[in-house]
Amino acid sequence: MSSTLITPDNFNSIVPEGDDHERMVCSDCGFIAYENPKIIAGSVVTYGDQILLCKRAIDPQKGRWTIPAGFLEMGEAPHEGAVREAQEEACATIEIIDLLAVYSVRRISQVHMMYRAVLAEPVFEPGTESLEVALFSWDKIPWDDLAFPSVHWVLNHFKEAQGKTGFAPFSNPQGWEGV
Amino acid sequence: MSSTLITPDNFNSIVPEGDDHERMVCSDCGFIAYENPKIIAGSVVTYGDQILLCKRAIDPQKGRWTIPAGFLEMGEAPHEGAVREAQEEACATIEIIDLLAVYSVRRISQVHMMYRAVLAEPVFEPGTESLEVALFSWDKIPWDDLAFPSVHWVLNHFKEAQGKTGFAPFSNPQGWEGV
Repeated sequence: MSSTLITPDNFNSIVPEGDDHERMVCSDCGFIAYENPKIIAGSVVTYGDQILLCKRAIDPQKGRWTIPAGFLEMGEAPHEGAVREAQEEACATIEIIDLLAVYSVRRISQVHMMYRAVLAEPVFEPGTESLEVALFSWDKIPWDDLAFPSVHWVLNHFKEAQGKTGFAPFSNPQGWEGV
Repeated sequence: MSSTLITPDNFNSIVPEGDDHERMVCSDCGFIAYENPKIIAGSVVTYGDQILLCKRAIDPQKGRWTIPAGFLEMGEAPHEGAVREAQEEACATIEIIDLLAVYSVRRISQVHMMYRAVLAEPVFEPGTESLEVALFSWDKIPWDDLAFPSVHWVLNHFKEAQGKTGFAPFSNPQGWEGV
């Protein structure tokens, strides 16, 4: 392979034989650069009746609040990714309860797998991607300063699921099915 | 970009600034080739009390039976991917009922999202990736000729879920949690 030179010009969008979608294919070596949707793994983390939120230290939406969530990494199960993200963004050790919601954001080819989780002890601090981490009671959630529509969705679905177990995970709320 | 030559030699596995995982990074232009788990979308499709299976025309596991399933494509929601796969592999028009299971196969960085679905009419035929498509009653399922462990899992979970609605999706069965 080291003798093969690849330039961006070598990659053309064609439908490989036996396929039915266009892929970026190298005209020199035939390498197919498959691109597929990515999974965002995250969790609504509670301590008592309070919810853990992180103020983003990075763009997009720097300075706005979100739940701990991020791209699933190779070799991880989604619930493991949610645990890692809580550790990375909030230095919080969480325990996953169940799968709360599966959202699709087709425009950016993301599938969000959102869990319910609990914090055993109120021990947390901002990770490198957070400016601030805090626990909020429901009526203190900074609704006008949430980072993404999906943070609204998952907090409302969390509220709707309170006291329930063994339910089908929520999906995109009404009006947002096609995004 | 067209003036930049990229060779496989230019890509080194390093931890980019602000990241905490190794990525393949081009030493010339800094391009980061992120790699993330892929979603397999599929469905247990029924017509009456029979289940639709496809005999694979391609490797891996050519000649063995599977449910319609495959890699989620850019811009798709998982349930839409399951609908497309049933069309492609079995020329079957299905209606999704609910999310039956979410499996993780860490070794190959896959997350399987498996749905329950029905066939309105018993109309199907092999797509290009199938040698044969057929409906099987439960006691006629070719258990010894199923293509993948996850086909066993999902068929057994389908059986376990019969008559139930509004349940939490199944996950990797006991003994297979860590795969």
